[in-house]
This record gives sequence, C-alpha cells and structure tokens, in this order.
Amino acid sequence: MASYDTSNVFAKILRGELPCHKVYEDERAFAFLDIMPRCPGHTLVIPKAAARNIYDIAPEDLAHVHVVAQTIAKAATAVFKADGVTIQQFNEPAGGQVVFHLHVHVLPRKDGVPLKPAATFKEDTAVLADHAAKLSAALKG
Amino acid sequence: MASYDTSNVFAKILRGELPCHKVYEDERAFAFLDIMPRCPGHTLVIPKAAARNIYDIAPEDLAHVHVVAQTIAKAATAVFKADGVTIQQFNEPAGGQVVFHLHVHVLPRKDGVPLKPAATFKEDTAVLADHAAKLSAALKG
Repeated sequence: MASYDTSNVFAKILRGELPCHKVYEDERAFAFLDIMPRCPGHTLVIPKAAARNIYDIAPEDLAHVHVVAQTIAKAATAVFKADGVTIQQFNEPAGGQVVFHLHVHVLPRKDGVPLKPAATFKEDTAVLADHAAKLSAALKG
Repeated sequence: MASYDTSNVFAKILRGELPCHKVYEDERAFAFLDIMPRCPGHTLVIPKAAARNIYDIAPEDLAHVHVVAQTIAKAATAVFKADGVTIQQFNEPAGGQVVFHLHVHVLPRKDGVPLKPAATFKEDTAVLADHAAKLSAALKG
C-alpha cells in the first residue's frame, strides 16, 4: 500500500487550503458535504489524523469517525426526511477509493430512490450551503 | 423505525439456532461469512447486543464492530490476496438493509473485479468452510 500523501484534497480541506461545506468538527473528526452528492445530504466524515484508509488508521480514530457518522446519520435522516441511510467506506482503488484520506460516506436514502452513480452530478453551491446549514444546525440542536 | 425483532436470522445465529461459518468472536462482537458472498471472503461483523441498525445501536457497540471489521479487513486482504476492501453498512430497507440486526459488510476486492450483485450467488458449503478456516486462522495468528 502507498503511504499517506499530504497533497490529497481532504488534507487540503483540513488545512483550510480548499473550501468545503462543513457540517461538523471536533478534536479528532471533521465532516462536510460531498460536492458531487449521490443523494441530498451526502456527507463525508474524516479523521483529522493523517490516515490513507482502513489499513493504516488507528483503531480509536476509526471508531470515533464511525460514532460521528452515526450522529450525522441520525441528524441527516431528520433533516432530509430520509427513510434509511447507507454507510460506505472504500479502501484502495480496488475497494472503490478515489481520495486517499480515509472517509466514511453517510448517504440519507428515500424509499425507491436509487443513488446517483458516483461523481456524475455536481450540486449547486447554494443548495450545498443550504443543506450544510440545516445539517449543522440539527447537529447542534 | 420498527423495533428489534428477535426472530431475525442473525439473532438465531447468535443464539446457536442456525449454523454459520464463524470467523471471529469476542465478548461484544461476532463475525461470519455471508453465504451469498459478493466476493470471496465476504464477511459480516455484528454486535452481540440486540440492535436493529445505526439508529438504535449503542455508540460503543458500533465503534467496536467497526474496529473488529478493520481487523478482519486486514486479515482478509492477506488471506484472499486482495488489492483493497469495501466496507458497507445498510440501514432500513431504503438504505439497503435486508436482515434487521446491524451488520457491517467486509468485502475484500481485487483490481478490475466488480462485486457480484447482492444475493444472487449461493457459495458451496465446502468453499465457505475452507475460507472461514483460513480467515479464522489468520485472525488468531
């Protein structure tokens, strides 16, 4: 497995070098909206620690990221009036990974509505800002 | 959301009322092979606690299940000579859930090999027994 590359886009987001639609942050985790959402509310939860994926992340960081994902899943279900949620986490290109900083996908789902294919639809910035504000407020409330 | 139904098949496996190809067990988690694998080594990790899905599981149980999934992902990558791993966890029918006891899918992946569609292929019992033995041994080693 390749080592961690500090030039990946999520590392740049963590360093504030790239903008994002943030929904949550604590000492060890950070969450923001996917700009190419597969469904409304598609959120990515990442560790602040440098971790490429499941093969090198510290177990306590992985655990924390998933606990944060659970909190976001519940809030997103309320905000987006979802009927369920799909959690995905991809590791290495064979496993579906495209950005090499570990991330958990939180996908609020509605009955009968399939996910859009990955990376096919770029959401409008105003819509993302609105969704991030609502989700962030629900997480604080 | 519906409440936990103790008659689900994974609850029966936990109670020993149905057989399974076990690969791992500790005080709070249990793991076994999917009998309709989407790829060789397709493993399910479940909490021993009664939890329907991400909406009702205790955060510490969810965290532990994912830490166990990480350990299994690493062992399965070695055993099945995988190039990566895909982690999935489905919640409610809209989210892809079919059995209503929380479970994390650990899917060892090879470059260029897509997952089989879910629930389309029933693996031979002898193959499952062989895979479970190898994975269980790797987890102990």
